Amino acid sequence: MSVVDFARFVDELATQSGQAILPFFRAAFITEDKAVGAKPFDPVTEADRAGEAVMRQLISRTFPSHGILGEEFGTEGEGAEYVWVLDPIDGTRGFIAGLPLWGTLIGLTRGGTPCYGLMHQPFLGERFSGDGQTAQYRGPHGTRRLLTRRRSSLSEAIAATTDPRLFGEGREREAYGRVEAATRLTRFGTDCYAYCMLAAGQIDLVIEAGLKPYDIVALIPIVEGAGGVVTTWDGGPASGGGNIVAAGSKRLHEAALKLLNG
Amino acid sequence: MSVVDFARFVDELATQSGQAILPFFRAAFITEDKAVGAKPFDPVTEADRAGEAVMRQLISRTFPSHGILGEEFGTEGEGAEYVWVLDPIDGTRGFIAGLPLWGTLIGLTRGGTPCYGLMHQPFLGERFSGDGQTAQYRGPHGTRRLLTRRRSSLSEAIAATTDPRLFGEGREREAYGRVEAATRLTRFGTDCYAYCMLAAGQIDLVIEAGLKPYDIVALIPIVEGAGGVVTTWDGGPASGGGNIVAAGSKRLHEAALKLLNG
Repeated sequence: MSVVDFARFVDELATQSGQAILPFFRAAFITEDKAVGAKPFDPVTEADRAGEAVMRQLISRTFPSHGILGEEFGTEGEGAEYVWVLDPIDGTRGFIAGLPLWGTLIGLTRGGTPCYGLMHQPFLGERFSGDGQTAQYRGPHGTRRLLTRRRSSLSEAIAATTDPRLFGEGREREAYGRVEAATRLTRFGTDCYAYCMLAAGQIDLVIEAGLKPYDIVALIPIVEGAGGVVTTWDGGPASGGGNIVAAGSKRLHEAALKLLNG
Repeated sequence: MSVVDFARFVDELATQSGQAILPFFRAAFITEDKAVGAKPFDPVTEADRAGEAVMRQLISRTFPSHGILGEEFGTEGEGAEYVWVLDPIDGTRGFIAGLPLWGTLIGLTRGGTPCYGLMHQPFLGERFSGDGQTAQYRGPHGTRRLLTRRRSSLSEAIAATTDPRLFGEGREREAYGRVEAATRLTRFGTDCYAYCMLAAGQIDLVIEAGLKPYDIVALIPIVEGAGGVVTTWDGGPASGGGNIVAAGSKRLHEAALKLLNG
């Protein structure tokens, strides 16, 4: 089976998980149920589970030999040639706050290497996808090829990170601080959306810490397909998660690594 | 002229400023012009100016006796009964980074008091408006009345701020830190969108520092119209800008003021 065929299947996973998740987004807003003392209800957990369940079902039925690693329901078939890596809602804080920057991450690895990824933002109707060679945007304003911006100097770079508190108070915070001080500006609160805007040439650098594989696997073929570089802070493969740095160009990536490690 | 009539006029200001601004959003992405060494181009400044110019022209033509206070082109007719307070792009960092959480703020004051406000997000097609008594959402998924969530305890509250660096390193940072530590979670990177999600009952508390009048005037009638409270950190009127705290309920607002001043 080729990656092209998988692409169609991934679109179906995105459509179905989006339908499962969307009714929970802005639930307080939609239902206007602001009653104090109403029974506890955690829309993001419900949405996470509903989204992952529908994707797992579709994968198991269509590709019973494939493995699945998901945020909510753990791992099955870990040793399979193809393993799906799923995060139904990346950016749960944004989801809870009603901000439409969360996304559904659907990644596929072959022999442990990410070979296809999609980020779906169902509220905005946006899909960012890539296979490591090329990457594409589809949204309400059209379809475009994704290409990173090839800035080479940190002083021109627009950087993003989800939350500076991710870096704690010690050496990682200092390392991040050196990069932040060297860049033109930093935007917070970005989650998966930052990697997609890096692929789109709007952001030059994304720096994060403590990621899980399901936070990053789907994004790797998108960033790389758009011409970017994504690794751990020590330059190793990003697919295992951990401390991650993504850049729009090889030179900018090298400059960031130097400051992070130095 | 009644506020209802102004509401229609404000919608026209939003439509026209949106048309002026939108071509500059994600310009790098849209044009795919990533050439190194291309002539300097600052899409956010261009968009800010284009958006404010079209609004000023429409206001001057329709209401020549009204005053205007705008981010880009300063103040005219300051002593007029009605003064328009305009911020074509609130959230310029988000705009630059390609994130659709910036908004166009259109506020109207009468005798110095905010009487109508609209936040327009033209990329998403969302409008949040209010007159201090009631507030409304219009977007691609429908029209709804905006109502804050009436949480009274900080430990349950979802808080937002655009950037913790706004508070510097001194007493303001400590004051903000006390509130952050007391809340359930804090989301960064929110700008005007946070006040609208507070009005929508998704966020309970917004805390910011160093705002200009045009950053907040339009948002006051939206927050108050949805049942929220917005003041400076010392409990004074928010319309002059400065350090601002907005809450979904009076009790939560009081609890936040106590910690900020405590």
